[in-house]
Amino acid sequence: MISVGIIGSSGYLGKNLINFCNQHVSVDNFEIYGNTTADNYLHEIFPEFQYITENKKILSLENISLSHDIYFLALPHGQAIKLVPELINAGNKVIDLSGDFRLDSPDDYLKWYNLNHSASYLLKEKLYGLADLPSSDYENVKLIANPGCYPTASLLALLPLVKNHNEIISSISIVSYSGVSGAGKTPRQDLMLAEMDGNVVAYNIHKHRHEAEIYQELYKIGFKGDFSFTTHLLPISTGIYATSNIFLKEEINAEELNHIYSEFYSSSQFVRLRNTPPQLKWVVGTNFCDINLSVRTSSVIITSAIDNLIKGGAGQAIQNMNKVFGLDESTGLINSRSKNVSVN
Amino acid sequence: MISVGIIGSSGYLGKNLINFCNQHVSVDNFEIYGNTTADNYLHEIFPEFQYITENKKILSLENISLSHDIYFLALPHGQAIKLVPELINAGNKVIDLSGDFRLDSPDDYLKWYNLNHSASYLLKEKLYGLADLPSSDYENVKLIANPGCYPTASLLALLPLVKNHNEIISSISIVSYSGVSGAGKTPRQDLMLAEMDGNVVAYNIHKHRHEAEIYQELYKIGFKGDFSFTTHLLPISTGIYATSNIFLKEEINAEELNHIYSEFYSSSQFVRLRNTPPQLKWVVGTNFCDINLSVRTSSVIITSAIDNLIKGGAGQAIQNMNKVFGLDESTGLINSRSKNVSVN
Amino acid sequence: MISVGIIGSSGYLGKNLINFCNQHVSVDNFEIYGNTTADNYLHEIFPEFQYITENKKILSLENISLSHDIYFLALPHGQAIKLVPELINAGNKVIDLSGDFRLDSPDDYLKWYNLNHSASYLLKEKLYGLADLPSSDYENVKLIANPGCYPTASLLALLPLVKNHNEIISSISIVSYSGVSGAGKTPRQDLMLAEMDGNVVAYNIHKHRHEAEIYQELYKIGFKGDFSFTTHLLPISTGIYATSNIFLKEEINAEELNHIYSEFYSSSQFVRLRNTPPQLKWVVGTNFCDINLSVRTSSVIITSAIDNLIKGGAGQAIQNMNKVFGLDESTGLINSRSKNVSVN
Amino acid sequence: MISVGIIGSSGYLGKNLINFCNQHVSVDNFEIYGNTTADNYLHEIFPEFQYITENKKILSLENISLSHDIYFLALPHGQAIKLVPELINAGNKVIDLSGDFRLDSPDDYLKWYNLNHSASYLLKEKLYGLADLPSSDYENVKLIANPGCYPTASLLALLPLVKNHNEIISSISIVSYSGVSGAGKTPRQDLMLAEMDGNVVAYNIHKHRHEAEIYQELYKIGFKGDFSFTTHLLPISTGIYATSNIFLKEEINAEELNHIYSEFYSSSQFVRLRNTPPQLKWVVGTNFCDINLSVRTSSVIITSAIDNLIKGGAGQAIQNMNKVFGLDESTGLINSRSKNVSVN
Repeated sequence: MISVGIIGSSGYLGKNLINFCNQHVSVDNFEIYGNTTADNYLHEIFPEFQYITENKKILSLENISLSHDIYFLALPHGQAIKLVPELINAGNKVIDLSGDFRLDSPDDYLKWYNLNHSASYLLKEKLYGLADLPSSDYENVKLIANPGCYPTASLLALLPLVKNHNEIISSISIVSYSGVSGAGKTPRQDLMLAEMDGNVVAYNIHKHRHEAEIYQELYKIGFKGDFSFTTHLLPISTGIYATSNIFLKEEINAEELNHIYSEFYSSSQFVRLRNTPPQLKWVVGTNFCDINLSVRTSSVIITSAIDNLIKGGAGQAIQNMNKVFGLDESTGLINSRSKNVSVN
Repeated sequence: MISVGIIGSSGYLGKNLINFCNQHVSVDNFEIYGNTTADNYLHEIFPEFQYITENKKILSLENISLSHDIYFLALPHGQAIKLVPELINAGNKVIDLSGDFRLDSPDDYLKWYNLNHSASYLLKEKLYGLADLPSSDYENVKLIANPGCYPTASLLALLPLVKNHNEIISSISIVSYSGVSGAGKTPRQDLMLAEMDGNVVAYNIHKHRHEAEIYQELYKIGFKGDFSFTTHLLPISTGIYATSNIFLKEEINAEELNHIYSEFYSSSQFVRLRNTPPQLKWVVGTNFCDINLSVRTSSVIITSAIDNLIKGGAGQAIQNMNKVFGLDESTGLINSRSKNVSVN
Repeated sequence: MISVGIIGSSGYLGKNLINFCNQHVSVDNFEIYGNTTADNYLHEIFPEFQYITENKKILSLENISLSHDIYFLALPHGQAIKLVPELINAGNKVIDLSGDFRLDSPDDYLKWYNLNHSASYLLKEKLYGLADLPSSDYENVKLIANPGCYPTASLLALLPLVKNHNEIISSISIVSYSGVSGAGKTPRQDLMLAEMDGNVVAYNIHKHRHEAEIYQELYKIGFKGDFSFTTHLLPISTGIYATSNIFLKEEINAEELNHIYSEFYSSSQFVRLRNTPPQLKWVVGTNFCDINLSVRTSSVIITSAIDNLIKGGAGQAIQNMNKVFGLDESTGLINSRSKNVSVN
Repeated sequence: MISVGIIGSSGYLGKNLINFCNQHVSVDNFEIYGNTTADNYLHEIFPEFQYITENKKILSLENISLSHDIYFLALPHGQAIKLVPELINAGNKVIDLSGDFRLDSPDDYLKWYNLNHSASYLLKEKLYGLADLPSSDYENVKLIANPGCYPTASLLALLPLVKNHNEIISSISIVSYSGVSGAGKTPRQDLMLAEMDGNVVAYNIHKHRHEAEIYQELYKIGFKGDFSFTTHLLPISTGIYATSNIFLKEEINAEELNHIYSEFYSSSQFVRLRNTPPQLKWVVGTNFCDINLSVRTSSVIITSAIDNLIKGGAGQAIQNMNKVFGLDESTGLINSRSKNVSVN
């Protein structure tokens, strides 16, 4: 049985982590550490937890026990970086949901996050935890950088193609749309329902931090083509839809491409290949990533959809924890008899 | 272990019943019987079930096995009535989610549903299955009429007050709002998103069938005051919000009223009394009913909120099944370690 | 031609007033006075005004010209009260959109707004500007208290009945739902789209300020029955839906009731009596109030719908201005050839 | 003064055309011709028109008067084609809002619309009516093919760049999202609010008819690079957001690019160049197209936003009519004093 420390509880990722830990059959103990929320009962902060997590109090960030087996950090970037070294040094395992350890190079971190990296020795050591990759090695891992939400949706859509056909890829443009929960809970006038209802807006064009993360992972396996990435906000709470436009230098065959993807994800319980473009609602509330491929001569268009807070955050973190401890990766994430899925 | 037959699978209630049965630890076998959907795999009808209910086929309504322990009927009213007698006669238990057996009198059924009741002998025998009532007796029950969605939200809000203070109640007006999933999946122009987005509309004023059901249950315990009930559609998918306005013939004390409700629901795992009016999102995706009481001299205003498809349908049906078989009523409905709640 | 001063420009009412004045054929000059927004061009504050109000600058609240013919005050309550006396003393006309002058008694103002009224001599002098009332006298009016949004929707629904049948009314319960623009533009976490999407919540039960305003107007014409009023937030931006539940001491005839309403509103261009409950979208973007009556023996249920920012705010204010200056009341509010309506 | 015939009244475009004609100062007469809606009063079909278009009856499609000055056809493709020749032959002007005359070649029409073109001689004669192009010649025009909604948003974003820098463009990928009103009013289960609420889905990938239209116009001015176009549905009623990703063969300068666009649209009243990505709500309810350019070395990302029913349909059609008759292009489309804009 696993003892879990959840650090950071006031945001959407913290809330989802709490919910997953509360129902995970192999987690027999978990504590939540918060700052502004410390000393409150969970159901005071999240009224929907009443009758579910009764009597669970949020502890202070200043008194984090070092005796948990694993820690989830759901803090803003720049704050996680301060806690991770101590937790690692105490021999613990850490899954960081911030952007602090996703980039491999401190220079890139400085460039995109505008901060000097105070624990850069951990950047090479960490595992970039894209949990559905068949190739990742979880043995002896100490620190997992949980991928960003957009990178999760984008990379799962692109990696099999890039890995297998990198040499013929001319360019990749990813256009992604996210529900506003991705922008966090801090009050902002432009994200009020009265402002965002029925609205759509692109943001951070040519300068979204997740661009660096996606490009890094594509570049690692050889991609050197033209690349662009754009992000938009949707007038809904949850979900990411990503449309990847790839131009090839030569034609490709749809069957061949589908075969590559089926092979690549043959052992994944959470990547579902679809015959039609996925509907966002198929994945909202779940840890699935649904993917569709469309090919016309040398144009490949890949649509992918995830829940930004689950597959793009807390769910993938739990999946990573399962892999760290050698559990079935779907434990606590799919209930079929002992599994679960939200439906509308 | 329980074997379940789910009859009717093309609507929202059927879908939720399938989902709950699929994850219920005491259900070791369930079959789904459909009409238009027969012979399809479940994930062909509901793509969100892919990788969850794999290889589960929908069987034909014409070949319903009589060997299940219990049957959920998620059929339109007028159709359930034709199947129930045979299932009961074969010694099985039935939970009917339609309106066919909710009213006690065939005259009322004729008046409100415009049909002659072909199995009226079952009307008295059935249990009206408002699952959070402490008083209901599930022993030897054969047929449970699962309450309507609006009646569930309304009666849970009103019964403790009416039961304890009926003699001083002058009038009750219930004004309720529902997400459009309550209107079903059959295509209608007025329910298209392009039409309903940002819209609200009252409907069936003075003639909604659920009015008869609510009034029947209040009348049974002595209510004879003025009564009205209105229903509206919200531009959202799921959830019911009910505001009950009660005028008393004399003043009442807030503490006293709160005490009555805490006592009444002291053993309920699914009715949560709140200090503030509930938010609909606290209950959507769950089997909870959240209730708030506000008193000013002789005016009592009670707000209650449920998920219309879960507490007002499939969830309450599972809760009823749990009670029939002597299980903890929350089995398969709340997961805390072995329990679950959807979060946003 | 009219010269208009709009005081307060950062909120939704200010924005709508600017838009109406900008297109009003009898307004040849208007200036906008703001605080935090002063010295900006209008289209810098409201990008949607670009190419429409070009070159119009917001002036400082500290330099309000006293030479406009009429002033619209779109300030929070407590602030309007400080400016009105000076504007009136200078011989100008004022339409105040805040709650500062709606109540007739300073005691009620203290009770509901928790402020001492510093210009209480104006309370009796002012006209309560429910613009569709046939009886109001606009001659020589100096100060108009523009009604609240909920009172507009409620009173237009109730006044004909109360005026004609007050003696047989036993009780009135108004249950109303509003889009979140009614809660203003100040950032609040609970009103972020990520929180309010798909949500509904009642608020200020038994203590909403508009209750005092509605009751005052009903009481004035003799109503003394039981009364309650509740407000809820909808997960949409704009619109109010009000459902008024009236119990009578004796039966009433539907035709008679409809006749009373047609007579009452025979000269109104903005109250539309409907055979079915109105849809909110019929009125959003317009100055209309749509009303439906449903009668069953002694139960009368009246549904009414308005745009909270137009009929419940800026549109009604323009209508009041038209009446003050003897213009057709629909000038600038309906365009048929010279009139206009937003459609979806 | 102009006499207008509107043919086709049951859809969203027809409704918007009616609304615009009803308020257009130079339209002194208009008639609506419908099929299923014939013989009804307008406000019976569109209750929101009550008190606005009173006493206006829909006439039968079988008795279209040939004496109007201009006709708007708001019919499905394949139906418009049957009426246009007769109207043209009678010496009238026609603005067709369907796709029947947008493509220049009958072969393309067969390929994309799967129909033989029965009036192909008109294809070359027609004007492709992208109303904000400075170069179009409206003199002596008989038939205007009103552009599709996606092509309007896409072409306005791309034409200045392609026209000026075609030789250095390597590829263009357009990713666009539309509100569901674009899919029409015919009831479909997948477009019910209960299904689409909170949902997003891509559709017709590599086979949307508007792709042919966009490519044709780009190809005409010399574009020969890689090209892709995708469409998605948003869970909102109205609006199109298009993100165009262009890779250049060499770097470009942001100032230079902005200059090209300002020059190109210097005389347009409806194309607004923005410093930030536009918000969809800035344009919904208006005839504007808002455009933002973002450049990073050789990557250009252009975001554009329109109202799909106005700028992408009825509004652009009115603008075309204005140009045909030599009126100011904004007549009836912007009201500033005599102009108007919807605000929230």
